[in-house]
Amino acid sequence: MRVKLPLFCLLLEAITIILFAIFVRYDHETDAKAWHHENVSDYENDCFQDVHTMIFIGFGFLMTFLKRYGFSSVAFNFLIASFGLQWSTLIQGFFHGFHNGKIHVGIESMINADFCTGAVLISFGALLGKTSPVQLIVMTLFEVTLFGINEYIILNIVGAKDAGGSMTIHTFGAYFGLVVSRVLYRPHLEKSRNREGSVYHSDLFAMIGTIYLWMFWPSFNSAITAHGDDQHRTVMNTYYSLAACTLATFAMSSLLNREGKLDMVHIQNAALAGGVAVGTSAEMMLTPFGAMIAGSFAGIISTLGYKFLTPILDSKLKIQDTCGVHNLHGMPGILGALIGVIVAFTATADIYGEGMSDVFPLIADTTRTAKSQAMYQGLALLVALGFALVGGTIVGFILKLSIFGAPSDAECFDDSLYWEVPEEEGHIAVHTEDPDQQTQA
Amino acid sequence: MRVKLPLFCLLLEAITIILFAIFVRYDHETDAKAWHHENVSDYENDCFQDVHTMIFIGFGFLMTFLKRYGFSSVAFNFLIASFGLQWSTLIQGFFHGFHNGKIHVGIESMINADFCTGAVLISFGALLGKTSPVQLIVMTLFEVTLFGINEYIILNIVGAKDAGGSMTIHTFGAYFGLVVSRVLYRPHLEKSRNREGSVYHSDLFAMIGTIYLWMFWPSFNSAITAHGDDQHRTVMNTYYSLAACTLATFAMSSLLNREGKLDMVHIQNAALAGGVAVGTSAEMMLTPFGAMIAGSFAGIISTLGYKFLTPILDSKLKIQDTCGVHNLHGMPGILGALIGVIVAFTATADIYGEGMSDVFPLIADTTRTAKSQAMYQGLALLVALGFALVGGTIVGFILKLSIFGAPSDAECFDDSLYWEVPEEEGHIAVHTEDPDQQTQA
Amino acid sequence: MRVKLPLFCLLLEAITIILFAIFVRYDHETDAKAWHHENVSDYENDCFQDVHTMIFIGFGFLMTFLKRYGFSSVAFNFLIASFGLQWSTLIQGFFHGFHNGKIHVGIESMINADFCTGAVLISFGALLGKTSPVQLIVMTLFEVTLFGINEYIILNIVGAKDAGGSMTIHTFGAYFGLVVSRVLYRPHLEKSRNREGSVYHSDLFAMIGTIYLWMFWPSFNSAITAHGDDQHRTVMNTYYSLAACTLATFAMSSLLNREGKLDMVHIQNAALAGGVAVGTSAEMMLTPFGAMIAGSFAGIISTLGYKFLTPILDSKLKIQDTCGVHNLHGMPGILGALIGVIVAFTATADIYGEGMSDVFPLIADTTRTAKSQAMYQGLALLVALGFALVGGTIVGFILKLSIFGAPSDAECFDDSLYWEVPEEEGHIAVHTEDPDQQTQA
Repeated sequence: MRVKLPLFCLLLEAITIILFAIFVRYDHETDAKAWHHENVSDYENDCFQDVHTMIFIGFGFLMTFLKRYGFSSVAFNFLIASFGLQWSTLIQGFFHGFHNGKIHVGIESMINADFCTGAVLISFGALLGKTSPVQLIVMTLFEVTLFGINEYIILNIVGAKDAGGSMTIHTFGAYFGLVVSRVLYRPHLEKSRNREGSVYHSDLFAMIGTIYLWMFWPSFNSAITAHGDDQHRTVMNTYYSLAACTLATFAMSSLLNREGKLDMVHIQNAALAGGVAVGTSAEMMLTPFGAMIAGSFAGIISTLGYKFLTPILDSKLKIQDTCGVHNLHGMPGILGALIGVIVAFTATADIYGEGMSDVFPLIADTTRTAKSQAMYQGLALLVALGFALVGGTIVGFILKLSIFGAPSDAECFDDSLYWEVPEEEGHIAVHTEDPDQQTQA
Repeated sequence: MRVKLPLFCLLLEAITIILFAIFVRYDHETDAKAWHHENVSDYENDCFQDVHTMIFIGFGFLMTFLKRYGFSSVAFNFLIASFGLQWSTLIQGFFHGFHNGKIHVGIESMINADFCTGAVLISFGALLGKTSPVQLIVMTLFEVTLFGINEYIILNIVGAKDAGGSMTIHTFGAYFGLVVSRVLYRPHLEKSRNREGSVYHSDLFAMIGTIYLWMFWPSFNSAITAHGDDQHRTVMNTYYSLAACTLATFAMSSLLNREGKLDMVHIQNAALAGGVAVGTSAEMMLTPFGAMIAGSFAGIISTLGYKFLTPILDSKLKIQDTCGVHNLHGMPGILGALIGVIVAFTATADIYGEGMSDVFPLIADTTRTAKSQAMYQGLALLVALGFALVGGTIVGFILKLSIFGAPSDAECFDDSLYWEVPEEEGHIAVHTEDPDQQTQA
Repeated sequence: MRVKLPLFCLLLEAITIILFAIFVRYDHETDAKAWHHENVSDYENDCFQDVHTMIFIGFGFLMTFLKRYGFSSVAFNFLIASFGLQWSTLIQGFFHGFHNGKIHVGIESMINADFCTGAVLISFGALLGKTSPVQLIVMTLFEVTLFGINEYIILNIVGAKDAGGSMTIHTFGAYFGLVVSRVLYRPHLEKSRNREGSVYHSDLFAMIGTIYLWMFWPSFNSAITAHGDDQHRTVMNTYYSLAACTLATFAMSSLLNREGKLDMVHIQNAALAGGVAVGTSAEMMLTPFGAMIAGSFAGIISTLGYKFLTPILDSKLKIQDTCGVHNLHGMPGILGALIGVIVAFTATADIYGEGMSDVFPLIADTTRTAKSQAMYQGLALLVALGFALVGGTIVGFILKLSIFGAPSDAECFDDSLYWEVPEEEGHIAVHTEDPDQQTQA
């Protein structure tokens, strides 16, 4: 690790800087000369900061639930998101911001780059505790690249709508990670299972991640929608979907336990499925009660997934899904795509009026009917699944190369493999007058 | 619990969804058709996100100070706020957004719904550790309803100003919760007292809640004021009031201790009283030094309350107030209302100029004099107290019904009653090479 | 402590209130009369809230890494920032907002006051665990005053640009604190060294601080730049600098360890140096790849500093720097100033166009050439260093007075000196049916 991690970090950073020097330029909103020439209107950065918080605090702390893997969870999240956002600026730039041989970047490219890292962090959730940081950086390199291609096909070629990324981020990220986990299957993971649980305070740290993801999801889904009614509607639909999802999750968590006790794993994760489930459709005229039905349904299937499906995936399909991303991002992502199909199918000029041009521009300019738009929405889901399955398989086999230093089956979920861990854990701030006494304890 | 909690959650969610389907429609800011027809100006969502953070992170983590009740604190907060915001959309909608038989909702209704849940969470603070989640959901159902009626009377009938909710949120929420706590008095709570304290790290989790509430209180008090000078002034007055309150709290906490040591309970709570104390008046021309005097005074009485009044309430009045909401929300709420009376009394055209129409519209259009406005401000406080006392009594007796499954006196402040709690608590990440050794510890 | 802390808090608060009453008035953005007369354009408060979060959550939790000093870290941070922002309103107001004998305050004065407290909190980092709260309050009183004078000289007399405060905040705050630490050198600090480390969960609390500082640094550096391209460019440059810095920090942390293991101290601190290093230049046409080079370099020198320089400062120069502020703020601050010199030196009309008037107004109006602006940027660094060294020495000797109650060498890094600390630390939520059993443990 002493050679490989520094080498990969510095090498990739150097390559990134060189590519930035060659290709990346300020766009008209960040360039001193262009701005004052064009006099562009002011841009608000609050959505960016909310999304940024979800990526670094939300995902980072959500994964700190493991008793001995908190350092790695929050810090590897930090590492791969930091690399991913730089790399995706390049990849997304080639597809979306390439003008005269240069990539023009501004606040919106930062939001899009953060979005892309979200998909990588979802995949990280499936692999949590079982991969080295070098493997994660290599995965980020490839997954960001595939994300960019997949997103370009879905949004620009297929012409589907997916503002909150039910397909491009959640479905793609989850199934990509699950396939990688399948390829990296560890038959003797039971050697590390004693560390695959939480302790009391690690569950509270994880709740910081949960609540931040939950609170700022409205900003996430609305970050790149058109300003005005689109953005407001997306915020509101997401808000109601999540609120309903939370009640459904509490209900199911209690119902599925013999004694009616709640399970922190469900609350930490399934309560968020409502945000995923309206990722495609929150921008559309879903109606608040429609959003609440979607959210409730997502909370129910996600909790059921944690209870019944995750063990089956592990034992039958040999997919070890540490954070249960299949329940939080996989199934709700597909559900979100399907809800998008249905809501697009029912779009009429009577409902959308002039707003049709923002939500469904291809229906507004009569290139497509609502039915054909719905069909393309469904096609986009298949594209996302295809990229995830094929891409995840290839990248999984790359990560198997011994050069990337995967931990052994007995060393999983353990910070001490990668970190200088402080020693006297069981004795936080024991109140003692004699300092020497502590070292004996 | 296995039957009741799922039943109540799912039933109430189903009823809410049906009522939403019947009554709730997008308003002109969230509807695709209406927006593009009316071309409404852009709305900023940053205040909403700040208030949202206070409700879910602020209140949620503030209550994690108990050593064994952290899961319940943050998660029941999450549950009842999620239900409360849906239900208050309906209740507040009937009173404030009812047009042609439909409730029109937008970003502002979301802020108002969050505000309403704030009152419920204050009441939750008085009851923390002593009620089942079913009791809390039932309380939310009724308290949200009463909040809506009380708020409508205070703002629309009495015509009082209360942008930051000193009366509608803090006074109402605190005394409602205290009366419920009185009705639910537990004579044998000493059986659970050994769990009614904090541990080192639970106090740090609580500080997350404290600091978030403290930081975003300026956004809270200003969230629904008029844009422009009103909003800026409210932000600034709240900022200075809280800063002064913090110094007063540290001073009093040290002064009241025999050895001059500080008490985390005071810092976590009393330092916030400055935000409550200017809830009514921060919008007015309070002046920065006026805000600082208000904040200092609030910090002093709140700390004194924790030291002297809370034990008396418990022993003499049989009010068990777990979080001391009487000190943080009750007394400072009344103080805030009285400061509002005084500042309204001194309002003159010379001070407010054309701004009078935003702050005191009824003085600006000569319906009222400053003196009569001050009188109505005082009347509003009485209304809030009346609703809290009568409503709290009735709801308290409802919650006493055995069907709602209150915990026994020996089971209070204990997560393990409602949660699957991880086992090996004292041994977080003990560094050991032999995994079997850990199970022996 | 029982007399001194209350006395200083209440006395200083009283003096502050009196000075506010005499001097401070609402400005045209917060005054009801002036606003409606002048009809000023709307001001966004999101940058303020982001900076506020950095000061209270970011700095506060970053310092909770110590195993037994978490209460003091977050709460003394809270105390001195609360006092500092009030006092700096007065000091900065005298220099920047004094009109007809009155200080006019608005949202921007709040941002500037928060900025000033940042410098004090950096100095606090060098002293962490070794000073009483009374010493800290006295230091705040003097340091805020010196900050105001230093800032006025740098920005208004020297005419340097320093939007993100590489010089005014980071260089000044760090070297001020280091010199104070030198004057207060403790020869027998080894008596407390057993408490100068972290435990597992205290490191996770510190990561909350780190991530918040990292995420919101773009808002910090851009908070007082001109709206439009300036603000966007500053946000973007800071974002890329920090991302690159993070990779460099992980690389160096692993490289410098015998076994290639990462060190939490580096990740918590050095990953932030990228924000400091572009504090002066992020507003300028630094280019994204330039920002990434700056950030990488900052991460490398900061990590090297933690590994090699901090022990030398301690053993040879008798500077005990608890949080390593020399590595996070000192060296990167100087680096940031030097980058500012270079980027100013290369400013041409061809690059900046009409935007020159915002970034370098004195070049735009031909008062200065780019070369002379660069020279003045360098001069500003010398001013900041001079104020820090001389001011820190004087204030250090003042703090040595026994009246301010410094802890003894054996009592450092210990909350129990100032706090009522909960007792049973090692036994958080041990699951036991018998409550009496717990007290025996």
